[in-house]
Amino acid sequence: MNWQDIFATRMGRMKASEIRELLKLLDQPDIISFAGGIPDPALFPQAEFKAALNDIFASGQGTDALQYSVSEGYKPLRDWIATQMAALGIPCGADNILITSGSQQALDYLGKLMLSKNDTALVNWPTYLGALGAFNAYEPQFDQISANSNRSATDYVQTAASHGGQAKFAYMSVDFANPTGETMDRRARLSMLDLANELDIAIVEDAAYQSLRYDGEAIPPILALEIERTGSIEDCRTIYCGSFSKTLAPGLRVGWVCAAKSVIQPLVLMKQAADLHSSTINQIAIHKVASTGFDAQIEKIRATYSQRRDHMLNALTTHMPKGVTWTKPEGGMFIWVTLPPHLDGAKLLAQSLKTQKVAFVPGRAFFADGSSGNTLRLSFSCADEDTINTGINRLGQLLQSVV
Amino acid sequence: MNWQDIFATRMGRMKASEIRELLKLLDQPDIISFAGGIPDPALFPQAEFKAALNDIFASGQGTDALQYSVSEGYKPLRDWIATQMAALGIPCGADNILITSGSQQALDYLGKLMLSKNDTALVNWPTYLGALGAFNAYEPQFDQISANSNRSATDYVQTAASHGGQAKFAYMSVDFANPTGETMDRRARLSMLDLANELDIAIVEDAAYQSLRYDGEAIPPILALEIERTGSIEDCRTIYCGSFSKTLAPGLRVGWVCAAKSVIQPLVLMKQAADLHSSTINQIAIHKVASTGFDAQIEKIRATYSQRRDHMLNALTTHMPKGVTWTKPEGGMFIWVTLPPHLDGAKLLAQSLKTQKVAFVPGRAFFADGSSGNTLRLSFSCADEDTINTGINRLGQLLQSVV
Repeated sequence: MNWQDIFATRMGRMKASEIRELLKLLDQPDIISFAGGIPDPALFPQAEFKAALNDIFASGQGTDALQYSVSEGYKPLRDWIATQMAALGIPCGADNILITSGSQQALDYLGKLMLSKNDTALVNWPTYLGALGAFNAYEPQFDQISANSNRSATDYVQTAASHGGQAKFAYMSVDFANPTGETMDRRARLSMLDLANELDIAIVEDAAYQSLRYDGEAIPPILALEIERTGSIEDCRTIYCGSFSKTLAPGLRVGWVCAAKSVIQPLVLMKQAADLHSSTINQIAIHKVASTGFDAQIEKIRATYSQRRDHMLNALTTHMPKGVTWTKPEGGMFIWVTLPPHLDGAKLLAQSLKTQKVAFVPGRAFFADGSSGNTLRLSFSCADEDTINTGINRLGQLLQSVV
Repeated sequence: MNWQDIFATRMGRMKASEIRELLKLLDQPDIISFAGGIPDPALFPQAEFKAALNDIFASGQGTDALQYSVSEGYKPLRDWIATQMAALGIPCGADNILITSGSQQALDYLGKLMLSKNDTALVNWPTYLGALGAFNAYEPQFDQISANSNRSATDYVQTAASHGGQAKFAYMSVDFANPTGETMDRRARLSMLDLANELDIAIVEDAAYQSLRYDGEAIPPILALEIERTGSIEDCRTIYCGSFSKTLAPGLRVGWVCAAKSVIQPLVLMKQAADLHSSTINQIAIHKVASTGFDAQIEKIRATYSQRRDHMLNALTTHMPKGVTWTKPEGGMFIWVTLPPHLDGAKLLAQSLKTQKVAFVPGRAFFADGSSGNTLRLSFSCADEDTINTGINRLGQLLQSVV
């Protein structure tokens, strides 16, 4: 049987990543890894989850927790999230919230909601690799967006039309983005809104890392800035994606979309058809842990990760040769390194794994056009001070020898 | 903002169901409902799940359970499922298993895997409503399959081509199907395999209810019959979808796909892009409960549901007027009732909710072409003997008055 004749055309877009193959070597215990984008499991509120799960059964919620539930999500959790959103300048109700299985599912659903084949998704160069992967299933074209560029709206429209579709949305990670660690300032957010208005497209605002700010002043989400202009979430084009994966725990797969009801209602129908609903017991457990200890958990995470960021920034200053530059993130988990143009991150990784036993993610995969191979992403979330110093020192030695 | 201009063409297929709106009335406590297709929560192995979750934290698995995990699913669970599959005549390994968030997600993924716009999915008339919903997102055409019909392979091919695509797979629920309660016999399964071979299409075998057999002899899954012919799962066109929702609990959202690695591998890439992985903690909990108490749980469910099926069949015999017929399922949760042709299930539901306070699901929605309105689905899974007798008696009175 030739499955290639049976598979849909979209499957041509789904390729196994060479990088992931390479990173399988990370199982080796002597490798120092700055590759993962995962939270430090030592910071998980384990006792709180254990207590919450116990409480579900002790308090008579056991049958509800194990049963089917509504596609839009557990109402008390949606209420709690709506309150959090209001505190961010996004007044809304539970009807503006859809619970998803992590924010990765939100990206998949938003691609499914808006992208017909050959429509265009506007993304940053570089952008979150998982967003490109999620959108790819709907066979779009990608175009580079930059709110600060001089490209006219007409140019975006014509480029999209030349690919046989229309621009549907701009996707961006706004705070301490994966992979760059950079944050859009207020002016860039407002410019983005202006451009989206002009193009009459949606904005997909990925706020997965928003709670992980270590210094600097918080900037309102794009959705909050848009509500300042329009007066109501129902009149907004921005679709906000949140997640508990970086704050409480990723293994429960709970995230959310916050948007106008005109967006949430079709997403609820989509979720019903796609997986009925996210795990009931996990939503109840997340609600219990979030509603009693979210702020304390955030403080704990921030204290640890901000130190690790500082250690890594210091180590980079100490060990990197001239010609190598990097971002200085105010939060999140990532630092983005730019090498001299003649170097290639993927080749460097192969070499680094062999001689230095240090892992990172080469930057090319984060570019929809596969450009800018002279970049790499470092994560500081899971490494202690000694590991960071040793690893960055070794990486610096390698770079000294090739720069 | 006009969201209709932004939404993908596929969204035109996603409509809120009138039936679901009607069934929202079920919250009223005086309604007797045979509408839901859900397991009786009183039968959930609550104590076992509570113990399993406690054990996860007590045994040091807490951090793993709360962390990201691999897209293919928790290896010990895949191993356990592979052993179960082997016992059904499907020798396979963990690499032949993908864990999904319920078998609803498997249907969504299989539509995504195989259906380009205007490709044809072959389905039974009637078929599982949720399968039509899942596939609809990929904008297919539906054609009616019946292994016992005299339609030639050429006819299927030409019909699919006339819709601008090709037939990709035949979907069927094989044991005690939702909605009919009927089971494909061995001969029908073999005929289906012959037709699929001739058409060179895949078979999607939905085995969600397979464990719920109350009497009669078990029939090997289509995939097992195909392996008897080909000698190896790797040479099979049948894709088997299983679920823990009807046996252990649906609220954890754990199901699986079992198929050739040529199918599983692209599905793993798809899952990685769509939601990364199913809940880690839920997969571990399901594995603990399944590996220690699956058989006992199945016995408990069978004992209860088989009695309820008997009560409902007896009540139908007692109370239904002449001209009304129904299926006699050997398992599962559903009985399918056919009314005289001039009656309409949806109108009857509206009337029944008003005057009889009895709910069921009108049959039309289960037909891809919206035909056969003179049908309805009754579920016996959640009703005790008295409720069944009272409800069927009332329904019989209504039917007496209109037949």
